[in-house]
Amino acid sequence: MNQPVDQQVDGLIRFRLDLGYDGTRYAGFAKQRRLATVQSELLTALTTVFGESKNDFFMRVAGRTDAGVHALGQVAHIDLSREQLKRIGRGKSLAVRLNSLLPSDIRVYSIAEAPAGFDARFSATYRRYRYRIGDAKAFISPLEARFTLWLDFALDTDAMQRAADGLIGLHDFATFCKPREGATTIRELREITVGRDPDGVVTVQLQADAFCHNMVRSIVGALIRVGGGRAEPADVLRILGLKSRVEAYKVVAAHGLTLIEIGYPEQSEMAGQAEKARNMRSLDEN
Amino acid sequence: MNQPVDQQVDGLIRFRLDLGYDGTRYAGFAKQRRLATVQSELLTALTTVFGESKNDFFMRVAGRTDAGVHALGQVAHIDLSREQLKRIGRGKSLAVRLNSLLPSDIRVYSIAEAPAGFDARFSATYRRYRYRIGDAKAFISPLEARFTLWLDFALDTDAMQRAADGLIGLHDFATFCKPREGATTIRELREITVGRDPDGVVTVQLQADAFCHNMVRSIVGALIRVGGGRAEPADVLRILGLKSRVEAYKVVAAHGLTLIEIGYPEQSEMAGQAEKARNMRSLDEN
Repeated sequence: MNQPVDQQVDGLIRFRLDLGYDGTRYAGFAKQRRLATVQSELLTALTTVFGESKNDFFMRVAGRTDAGVHALGQVAHIDLSREQLKRIGRGKSLAVRLNSLLPSDIRVYSIAEAPAGFDARFSATYRRYRYRIGDAKAFISPLEARFTLWLDFALDTDAMQRAADGLIGLHDFATFCKPREGATTIRELREITVGRDPDGVVTVQLQADAFCHNMVRSIVGALIRVGGGRAEPADVLRILGLKSRVEAYKVVAAHGLTLIEIGYPEQSEMAGQAEKARNMRSLDEN
Repeated sequence: MNQPVDQQVDGLIRFRLDLGYDGTRYAGFAKQRRLATVQSELLTALTTVFGESKNDFFMRVAGRTDAGVHALGQVAHIDLSREQLKRIGRGKSLAVRLNSLLPSDIRVYSIAEAPAGFDARFSATYRRYRYRIGDAKAFISPLEARFTLWLDFALDTDAMQRAADGLIGLHDFATFCKPREGATTIRELREITVGRDPDGVVTVQLQADAFCHNMVRSIVGALIRVGGGRAEPADVLRILGLKSRVEAYKVVAAHGLTLIEIGYPEQSEMAGQAEKARNMRSLDEN
């Protein structure tokens, strides 16, 4: 598992970007040939400010969100040379300049020199996602249609929470993951709560050290079956025990999913956490 | 001013629709040839349930929103014959059926037989609109980009409120209205408040008996000039006194504007209010 990983190049200065996006128009975060992605938009804006970069400013991201998935609390880093830094100049802040170059559905909240040892992906200690479902009991706001899965039946959120409770802890989540070669599916799910917002919208929040591919959307698909009375909480625990991908539960639509938060350790543990994570996981996971 | 107006045809039963929409994709509420509009989508869904209607189900709406304007609290009415009503059938509610036929950016909250004398447009006693502005002091949520005007400078909301206070009352708002032949521009602006949401977004809320065309967006344009320090509150009062359209203040973008609420009187005054409004205003206003 000890693959060569992206260590910082000597002499470059690392910057942390905090950002969010409405993922509707994008084929995911990661750059892809001939497709609009969040990363491509960021790179275009950065290139306008700093000039061409052969290595995409060494950009790395904490959560490689899929096509159509949104982010409110995404974190990325880039590495800049002193030559590039000279181009920042004075006047408006770098975040304001980037936002004026970016489409309005991508917003950079802040960009600042990162603490020593910081790696947006590998220093992260947890990821938090939210999935929104408007069921038959919810007030249906059309302004939130882009971020909410609509169901025409009512969900039993208590039953969903009981099913969710069985998933807490360190497990092999292979049942809920789209397999990727060489990638482990063992994850620590630290929190999963099912609740209703004041407008009745059902919100599932999940926090884990990391999530394997499709994991949140597969888990939510299973919880919806329970909430709709078509499965029992015990069924979800049973399929978790199968430890291999099952097709019984639908991977729910991407547009209900939003990356909410990336957690990082205290400064003193930043480099250590990054080293630990680099050794545990392969490169193509989130 | 006593034009022939849409009185209810004998034998038809009037239904009140409460609905909302994300106006981004639509060329406004009102049906237009070859353009996607909210009304066209509603008519298509209604036709699927009730069959073809030569007169568009006699649909009338309380606020004829412009292209790109959103609505959370829109109200419309339709008139249905007993023959058409037979097609409702049993099972899922009519609102649920319409929503399953409508695009997800239009939602019917409820549809029910209207009280006697109800007219969605003419019974209304007030309209309430909200305009959202994300200035340099606001937290910028990309999930609200579609409903929020972004400005890269900071607004002085106290100055904006002082300017707004001068507009309260019964005035000829011709300064802020796109003229329409035969239509009065005298309106009673009952409330206009400028505040900041917890995330720092500046929200202007306006309530009036009715608004003439472009009135909200012209007023907000004037308030933004004051908030940005390029005009004084007294300037806004002065141009109101001109009583004719001025080009000094920009009509701000449609996407920041949302129709929030339509007010109706108590049941006993419903028909009287409709009669009063019919006599006061011409047909092509909101």
